[in-house]
Amino acid sequence: MRNSLALDGHYLEREVPLLIRREGMARWDDGCVRILDRRRLPHERVVITCTTVEEVAGAIEGMAIQGAFTLAIAAGYGLALAAPRGPGDGLTAVRIHSAAERLAGTRPTGSALRRLLRVAVTAADDRIAAGGDPVDAIVTTIDRAAAALARQALLAARAASGLVRDGEPILTHCFADRTLLYLLLEARSAGKVIPVYCSETRPYLQGARLTALSVLEIGHPVTLITDGMGGLVLREGLARLLVTGADRVCLDGTICNKVGTYQFALAAHANGVPYYVLRPSGPDPDSLGETDVTIEYRDEDAVLSWRGTRIAPEGARGLYPAFDVTPATFVSGVVTDRGILPAGGVREYFDRPAAVSDALF
Amino acid sequence: MRNSLALDGHYLEREVPLLIRREGMARWDDGCVRILDRRRLPHERVVITCTTVEEVAGAIEGMAIQGAFTLAIAAGYGLALAAPRGPGDGLTAVRIHSAAERLAGTRPTGSALRRLLRVAVTAADDRIAAGGDPVDAIVTTIDRAAAALARQALLAARAASGLVRDGEPILTHCFADRTLLYLLLEARSAGKVIPVYCSETRPYLQGARLTALSVLEIGHPVTLITDGMGGLVLREGLARLLVTGADRVCLDGTICNKVGTYQFALAAHANGVPYYVLRPSGPDPDSLGETDVTIEYRDEDAVLSWRGTRIAPEGARGLYPAFDVTPATFVSGVVTDRGILPAGGVREYFDRPAAVSDALF
Repeated sequence: MRNSLALDGHYLEREVPLLIRREGMARWDDGCVRILDRRRLPHERVVITCTTVEEVAGAIEGMAIQGAFTLAIAAGYGLALAAPRGPGDGLTAVRIHSAAERLAGTRPTGSALRRLLRVAVTAADDRIAAGGDPVDAIVTTIDRAAAALARQALLAARAASGLVRDGEPILTHCFADRTLLYLLLEARSAGKVIPVYCSETRPYLQGARLTALSVLEIGHPVTLITDGMGGLVLREGLARLLVTGADRVCLDGTICNKVGTYQFALAAHANGVPYYVLRPSGPDPDSLGETDVTIEYRDEDAVLSWRGTRIAPEGARGLYPAFDVTPATFVSGVVTDRGILPAGGVREYFDRPAAVSDALF
Repeated sequence: MRNSLALDGHYLEREVPLLIRREGMARWDDGCVRILDRRRLPHERVVITCTTVEEVAGAIEGMAIQGAFTLAIAAGYGLALAAPRGPGDGLTAVRIHSAAERLAGTRPTGSALRRLLRVAVTAADDRIAAGGDPVDAIVTTIDRAAAALARQALLAARAASGLVRDGEPILTHCFADRTLLYLLLEARSAGKVIPVYCSETRPYLQGARLTALSVLEIGHPVTLITDGMGGLVLREGLARLLVTGADRVCLDGTICNKVGTYQFALAAHANGVPYYVLRPSGPDPDSLGETDVTIEYRDEDAVLSWRGTRIAPEGARGLYPAFDVTPATFVSGVVTDRGILPAGGVREYFDRPAAVSDALF
């Protein structure tokens, strides 16, 4: 394993940070889905073993795994748990369709989840029609999708490499996942040091736990801030670039990402700091603009409490919108595997030749 | 005590929320300073008894008490601990001056602290020169200052009463203290219900703990959000007004307040939501503009850990600027005891007649 290639096909598995290794996401392991429990990071590495669709759905809903594409991969492998191995029958197909519905319902905002599940269901249906093994069809589909995602992220990172300069700090929010990590890996390979300011990202602290951990693994310095400090960091010129991921990019360039992104984007714009959105697969072809985005509201307890201990007084309510929306005006560009596009012109993605032939997104 | 008047001279002590009662701030109690430990709120009510200047300084530095004016009051009473009771001598004066220096050093950003200490030191010096008791001089000075602050806050709240409308939610950040609470008390007296969105205010959670508690005591509904959600709340039109306190208002209208304020101000401006700053005593006459503001950087551990439990991976650094700066452009007005002034024209405060005759600020 130590010399095996990472999903991207370029780096070695041991060279990439834990969270973009197979073991750091979700993997199919002979009849079960193994998911690294991200809630226990950075201090503990606990793997959850799921043998039922419901367990996978629960792991996603319970935030054991996160990130639009990463959880889609977990859900995809989870789909394979709906069918017994071997040639499928009519009942198998029904089970798979019903499992896909359950898994798609775990997160209303992301479009990747739905798309990947659709493709996997079709692959299973086709295999069943041909008298073959739907489990194999699903797992192979998801394996390919995971590898394609990694290659797309690496290509996008290369397209963005000119945005980061040796010694110039950047600010990020939440966990921008594969593309940011490949951007930082490529920078390190080029001998650059990129100091990273990362916001803790309440209430689940993806920034403090996942981003900080991964950036340190790559070898760049990390400075943690609270979610209220990004504006100051940009205004004082401490960071010279804002980069985030996106849970969805609409055809009009509207960005949907972890709540808090909008405020940082406004502050970047007000201070002349460029803001680039990392979205290797470009815009969602089904989302024209903001009206197509459903903001997911999660359980208020996550805001009212801290790991089970209530911080708010009795009688207070909580509001937990998981994402917010940033209009294209505040975005300098969208980084894709087909190059960097202006947010307002992100539709052009579809006019450019495919960069990864078997990309699903 | 149950029917005694609150510091403001209008409400009864029992009618105002805990944090603007004498027992909820700092009080002089026969040779010691008693401070309600705000870190233990909202779940516990613990009073710290200080008998030395160093204990008071430690309580301020350790965040047992907070709020620019409230901690200035605590420091003022703390100054009285520097002198033995009875007629002072040359050595007493030296002790008081040195204590004032120690107490002023607890917080570099706030100007109220310095000003109150200067006035109290002068009162003590004068009393010593007249052969009198400097402790009594200091305590009387601080008692009067605390009462004047409460009256100023009530007048400012009345000036702002037209800004809040029955049923229209407002957003606030951190703990805007007396003036916000009087605004909400006056609104309730007028039969209005003002739903309040309040941001938790990491790392010390003044919003979750102090603001939420006080607003609920007054009887308005509270919805807690994280510091990254204010932009969404303003953009979605959930709140129709942004109000915060200010640790300092400069003569050019620059606002210095709890870090995170700037981002909310930008979001309010971008969405046409008015942003009013509550600052009963008007601008700081010694601060021309931003260059006169020193942002206080506190211990990174507050960001890296949560109540003693580290949240960040080993190797991560933290940045903890306690305040940020908002230019006057993003501020609709400054609410003072002499009326509401446009931020850019806040100097006019000094041309208006004094509203509270013995106001120190």
